[in-house]
Amino acid sequence: MAPITPHHALSELLTPELGAMLAEGRMDETKATLLELMIPELADVLASLPDEQRSLAVSVLPPRRVGRTIMRLEADQRESLLKDLPNDKLASVLNEMNPDDRTELLEELPDELLERSMTLLRPDERRVTEFNLAYPEESVGRLMTSDFVAIRPDWTVAQTIEHIRKHGRDAETIDTLYVVDDEGMLLDDIRIRQLILSAPTQSIASLMDQTAVSLKAGDDREEAVRVMNRYDRPVLPVTDAGRLVGIITFDDVADVAAEETTEDIQKMGGMEALDEPYMSVSLIQLFRKRGIWLSVLFIGEMLTATAMAYFQVEIEHAAVLAIFLPLIISSGGNSGSQASTLIIRAMATREVRLGDWFKVFRRELACGLLLGVLLGLIGLLRIHAWEWLGWGNYTSYYHLVALAVSISLIGVVLWGTIMGAMLPFLLRAMRLDPATISAPFIATFVDVSGLTIYFTIALVILRGTLL
Amino acid sequence: MAPITPHHALSELLTPELGAMLAEGRMDETKATLLELMIPELADVLASLPDEQRSLAVSVLPPRRVGRTIMRLEADQRESLLKDLPNDKLASVLNEMNPDDRTELLEELPDELLERSMTLLRPDERRVTEFNLAYPEESVGRLMTSDFVAIRPDWTVAQTIEHIRKHGRDAETIDTLYVVDDEGMLLDDIRIRQLILSAPTQSIASLMDQTAVSLKAGDDREEAVRVMNRYDRPVLPVTDAGRLVGIITFDDVADVAAEETTEDIQKMGGMEALDEPYMSVSLIQLFRKRGIWLSVLFIGEMLTATAMAYFQVEIEHAAVLAIFLPLIISSGGNSGSQASTLIIRAMATREVRLGDWFKVFRRELACGLLLGVLLGLIGLLRIHAWEWLGWGNYTSYYHLVALAVSISLIGVVLWGTIMGAMLPFLLRAMRLDPATISAPFIATFVDVSGLTIYFTIALVILRGTLL
Repeated sequence: MAPITPHHALSELLTPELGAMLAEGRMDETKATLLELMIPELADVLASLPDEQRSLAVSVLPPRRVGRTIMRLEADQRESLLKDLPNDKLASVLNEMNPDDRTELLEELPDELLERSMTLLRPDERRVTEFNLAYPEESVGRLMTSDFVAIRPDWTVAQTIEHIRKHGRDAETIDTLYVVDDEGMLLDDIRIRQLILSAPTQSIASLMDQTAVSLKAGDDREEAVRVMNRYDRPVLPVTDAGRLVGIITFDDVADVAAEETTEDIQKMGGMEALDEPYMSVSLIQLFRKRGIWLSVLFIGEMLTATAMAYFQVEIEHAAVLAIFLPLIISSGGNSGSQASTLIIRAMATREVRLGDWFKVFRRELACGLLLGVLLGLIGLLRIHAWEWLGWGNYTSYYHLVALAVSISLIGVVLWGTIMGAMLPFLLRAMRLDPATISAPFIATFVDVSGLTIYFTIALVILRGTLL
Repeated sequence: MAPITPHHALSELLTPELGAMLAEGRMDETKATLLELMIPELADVLASLPDEQRSLAVSVLPPRRVGRTIMRLEADQRESLLKDLPNDKLASVLNEMNPDDRTELLEELPDELLERSMTLLRPDERRVTEFNLAYPEESVGRLMTSDFVAIRPDWTVAQTIEHIRKHGRDAETIDTLYVVDDEGMLLDDIRIRQLILSAPTQSIASLMDQTAVSLKAGDDREEAVRVMNRYDRPVLPVTDAGRLVGIITFDDVADVAAEETTEDIQKMGGMEALDEPYMSVSLIQLFRKRGIWLSVLFIGEMLTATAMAYFQVEIEHAAVLAIFLPLIISSGGNSGSQASTLIIRAMATREVRLGDWFKVFRRELACGLLLGVLLGLIGLLRIHAWEWLGWGNYTSYYHLVALAVSISLIGVVLWGTIMGAMLPFLLRAMRLDPATISAPFIATFVDVSGLTIYFTIALVILRGTLL
């Protein structure tokens, strides 16, 4: 039989069939069908069943399988499923779960269900969970699992393999083993390949190379992403005051990386991070997280009305100026959005650091000038072309209007570019999140200054003619 | 000795010291210092040396270490380093590199250096590299390494361990072993833990569970990201027509995920993806990739000038209308940016699929209406407040102006939200990249339609008074 290749449409094919089995009470058949699936497919199928059928299907599955599947369901599905489970089943599911998954599950549950769950945990499992939950939210301590294999430096390879045979069955990984001293202090890590490639009589101490890279349990979880990327290790040990307290694995770190990126992107799009999948967040939350920033930007943008009021007389004399206003200020916003997006992302991937600000400033100065000249030329051509073609009605001073528009474009694009590139550095220097400089924020900022630049240049160029 | 924890400032401390050693020709000391470093730190130190010193430092390092470090340098540093290496050193570095790193290195080199490098490869290594390079750019085939351990179903556990001892030393991983038949067809994968936990006499066939998840060499590399996230495996086998041809590991996949996200973010910021780190891309490339989209947006935004020209008479009669124009159109752009950012990211993480468009439409309709009413109310209050405070000069029909602004805000925000949310679906349905719907694109789109909405509503409300 060929290896299974992933199949997304599987749940769509299987769900109606399974719905029929469940409706007709064919539980043996349900069980056999579900047991054949791999965990991701099982989760897809369960997710697409209605709540009551999902609970029914879960009742025939072994607790370990339920525990491995549950974190792949959506938060509300998870909650309703756990509520429906009888105490004995809930107890076995929770006790069989990997400690890291369980911590993640429990920290999101409503208080009542959390309390019920905690009382159902075996004392040893409860201790582990309470230990993890004692670390701050979004810390490495919340992500780690205690299912690792610790070994001693004075053991031989043969002794170690024997130990793994006895105690490694439940471990999250035995690919990497952790060498600790009598007090549980982390000394080093050993890859299992080293054991396989060494003589049985060699000591663990002789295999140690002091190159373990570890995380602290109190570290922010973003540190885990950074360290794992840097050192290319699929598993990292976690210490607290030097003592080995857990491990975290690449899959959890990949999830964290994706979540952190989503947060950044949402901020860059001009809103608060949702912290939940788009489809599961409530409408009122969605409104709140967007409304706050939209109002802030709106109030900031009101300054354009204040600024424009100063130029009301000019607009009355030369309405032609107003015609090009959206074009000019949006170009500043667009060039600022490009620059801020580039710099914020380069900071997130650590290509650009705080100390690089001057190098970036010089590049963006040059690039902004080039971009400004490009748009200025297009603008100049456009206005003259329309006049030549007889489509425009830009007054008899149209060449001066074109000049004012062109020069304003150079100024506004340059200004937008520099602001977009430098504001993230300013925020970082103030130890704030650079991603708060969203494209809409830059656009708003540049709108206000852009129209002032435009009208000022227009005043200078058109004084004595139109103005 | 405590395990090493990562230290970023290390290169800053070490670089001047190392510079002095190199300048004074103390090569033994240089070598000893560099050999003590872990690969990421070694790369940092080398990256911060000037070109000639870097080449000198590399000349004392073992080829295998150079090969493991080189991909962490910037592209131009890599190139100049390779050019400086004498043929025998270059040959040993290239032959000692992991095949996946080598493919990545070679595919970016200029033709001349590429040819020189290929002739220096040993026949077996050259065959592997040519094999990988035969797959399309950005395919899984380009990412894979051939250093895996293949085993047979009829072997015993003891035989397998013996085989690993003999052939596993150069493998990229022996945590997972691949079971193939006589023709090299992939049958299954076995974790090394299964070997350790099993009796030596057991056969490999008895350990097989047919749950291998594999990639095809011709697949897009984004597929690797998706499959690895879904199945939580640190290594995936790669097949071509069912035959096992390589493996790809979590660290390469994490790099791909980060690159693909960077591309998405750059597109969302309104430019072409740079495809290179911000600091290494040339100014002319930077200008080109931003200038193209900026010009396209500028030309699109010219429609605002065309649209405004239609309302020139109204602006001359009621310059007060122009005052609120930037405020109104930017609010549409901002709400559109929020919606498009949310949906594009949710599509990238597969929380939202094409089939969800109607669910999203309903949510965004409700959310857009709420947001529009929120801004409409703030706008209404602002205009009345300014008049009461004596700061505004919004004519004696200011309450009608306020009404026109408010209703326009509701319309424009709703319109921006719906467009921002729906255009990514449209692109996806057309099999284009939804990330092309950048915040600036939406802003431009909404500017043109927004000002038409505004002036039309103003015409209706103010006809017979101001207009």
